[in-house]
Amino acid sequence: MESDDGEVVSNKQVIFKDYVSGALKESDMYITTSTIRLKVPEDCTNGVLVKNLYLSCDPYMRIRMRNFQGSYLSPFKPGSPLSGRGVAKVLDSRHPDYKKGDFIWGITGWEEYSLITATETLFKIHDKDVPLSYYTGILGMPGLTAYAGFYEICSPKKGEFVFISAASGAVGQLVGQFAKLLGCYVVGSAGSKDKVDLLKNKFGFDDAFNYKEELDLDAALKRYFPDGIDIYFENVGGKMLDAVLLNMRVHGRISVCGMVSQYNLEQPEGVHNLMYLVPKRIHMEGFLVSYFFHLFPKYLDMVLPYIKQGKIVYVEDIAEGLENAPAALTGLFAGRNIGKQVVAVSRE
Amino acid sequence: MESDDGEVVSNKQVIFKDYVSGALKESDMYITTSTIRLKVPEDCTNGVLVKNLYLSCDPYMRIRMRNFQGSYLSPFKPGSPLSGRGVAKVLDSRHPDYKKGDFIWGITGWEEYSLITATETLFKIHDKDVPLSYYTGILGMPGLTAYAGFYEICSPKKGEFVFISAASGAVGQLVGQFAKLLGCYVVGSAGSKDKVDLLKNKFGFDDAFNYKEELDLDAALKRYFPDGIDIYFENVGGKMLDAVLLNMRVHGRISVCGMVSQYNLEQPEGVHNLMYLVPKRIHMEGFLVSYFFHLFPKYLDMVLPYIKQGKIVYVEDIAEGLENAPAALTGLFAGRNIGKQVVAVSRE
Repeated sequence: MESDDGEVVSNKQVIFKDYVSGALKESDMYITTSTIRLKVPEDCTNGVLVKNLYLSCDPYMRIRMRNFQGSYLSPFKPGSPLSGRGVAKVLDSRHPDYKKGDFIWGITGWEEYSLITATETLFKIHDKDVPLSYYTGILGMPGLTAYAGFYEICSPKKGEFVFISAASGAVGQLVGQFAKLLGCYVVGSAGSKDKVDLLKNKFGFDDAFNYKEELDLDAALKRYFPDGIDIYFENVGGKMLDAVLLNMRVHGRISVCGMVSQYNLEQPEGVHNLMYLVPKRIHMEGFLVSYFFHLFPKYLDMVLPYIKQGKIVYVEDIAEGLENAPAALTGLFAGRNIGKQVVAVSRE
Repeated sequence: MESDDGEVVSNKQVIFKDYVSGALKESDMYITTSTIRLKVPEDCTNGVLVKNLYLSCDPYMRIRMRNFQGSYLSPFKPGSPLSGRGVAKVLDSRHPDYKKGDFIWGITGWEEYSLITATETLFKIHDKDVPLSYYTGILGMPGLTAYAGFYEICSPKKGEFVFISAASGAVGQLVGQFAKLLGCYVVGSAGSKDKVDLLKNKFGFDDAFNYKEELDLDAALKRYFPDGIDIYFENVGGKMLDAVLLNMRVHGRISVCGMVSQYNLEQPEGVHNLMYLVPKRIHMEGFLVSYFFHLFPKYLDMVLPYIKQGKIVYVEDIAEGLENAPAALTGLFAGRNIGKQVVAVSRE
């Protein structure tokens, strides 16, 4: 029975074992069970105690697993639970903006219950007519990433030739659909037949290919883009970027969102064809979604009607239960997920 | 004695022996002497017959020495004279815009006399109060390259931190002076003590260093730019670019003018740190001067008064005589030139 001090319950957690070099393995994480009191402590001003529902598996998390302080991301702490963005239900709150029963999304722990003190990362969920898990994807950071990376960095125009790598992922599937809505010709690459089918049949890409079946990526791109590429939405890096550089058109734009093929490597692969930036006057620009937080309301105004009208679809790959979280996160770097990888901690 | 058909004279030429792989050697070129009639043939509409005075040695010429048709530059023809930009005097003309006695600059042959048929590359020289050789440099393509690459690609602002590689070269020395005139903090790298002295004492850079004496380019850049680099004017590529990527500031700009350290290599070095484009939102853009020909009059209006007032200086490295042209061009890739490398074929 619940007292005023809150019930003490068991709290399953995904613990980060130690810094990782090379390929991420499930054994770099382990499951443990501790306890938590379901009440924000009195001295914790503005704290929020939540029950976690959905956790987002994101490529950037691999960067936090390195013992490297020089990044824009601080490393995870060995022996502590992972953290990342997720959707949660408020059980108790000392924060004026959140009350018991509210649903929020933002940075939380990889565990059943979290005491969130860095509440500046939280957003209250107002629209619940959509799956709550969408706030880890299309209605969260991946959505804004796709929107800002495509519209703000690429300055796309109707009729342009757009190529997207990791195209069935959390961000890529949206970039492709935004580009189609604008009237672009869109081709995506992905790493399996199922993903390629998804791109062509579900997301409406004009074409798609399995990069693992292409011995010569340059030749593949020439087949799909005989007149070259205007916009490349870069999610993978390495060899694909080198092949794309050979196929860009004059005044082409490369939006560098991430380079997931590189994150498991100790030393990133070298990119050899940067000289091709010169004759074609190619504009290449990196970005973090955090540069574009101000666009979030505008983005939601655009995308929510599209979702409700069925003009934009979103595919998620939901792993059930915290026990499956290490496999889900590891699978992201092996390309095992089909669509946005989410972990469902609890459905309510 | 000159007849109506024009005198036939001997014509010394620098012949391109064969396609080059690896480091350019003087023996990849040879000197020969043919003959030429100093008259535009009757069937050569719009042709111009010139006496060459100054020839420009430019890094891009190395790219034309490869047997590779896929570039924006066609390869030189083995057994034929090299060609490139130069300053010449018109001896005979069937072109309405040029008459005997005019001085012109544009694409000509590496020989004493040339019959120019591709006259669309020519400019008439109006201002002769400056050394004529300047039309291979500050008043020609390198000048416009520096101007457009700095002002148009980098969007520089007063007080920004600017780094220039190959900084004493034809383009770099001007970018540095433009940046100083705008009120930027400017540091250059070069490959010898003499060049470093030139940067600091002649061109007014705030500081300069010899990259050959730095075992750790990243550490060197951190020494000169403790707060990071806003603008990098890229002339060299390879390891320097990798070190710069570690030191760029948020919203930094990299103008990719060329990558001279790579042109003698069969396979360009890999660049490993492109992921750093992402967190800092770095804008990297290549360009060719030909995208900016429309700015040429505006550029001349700016730079000619600066030259005459001594506010901008220009250092040339002039090799005397066609015999020394192969060594001059070869030296460019070994960094032997101090300032803009020119070949004086004839002083008048």
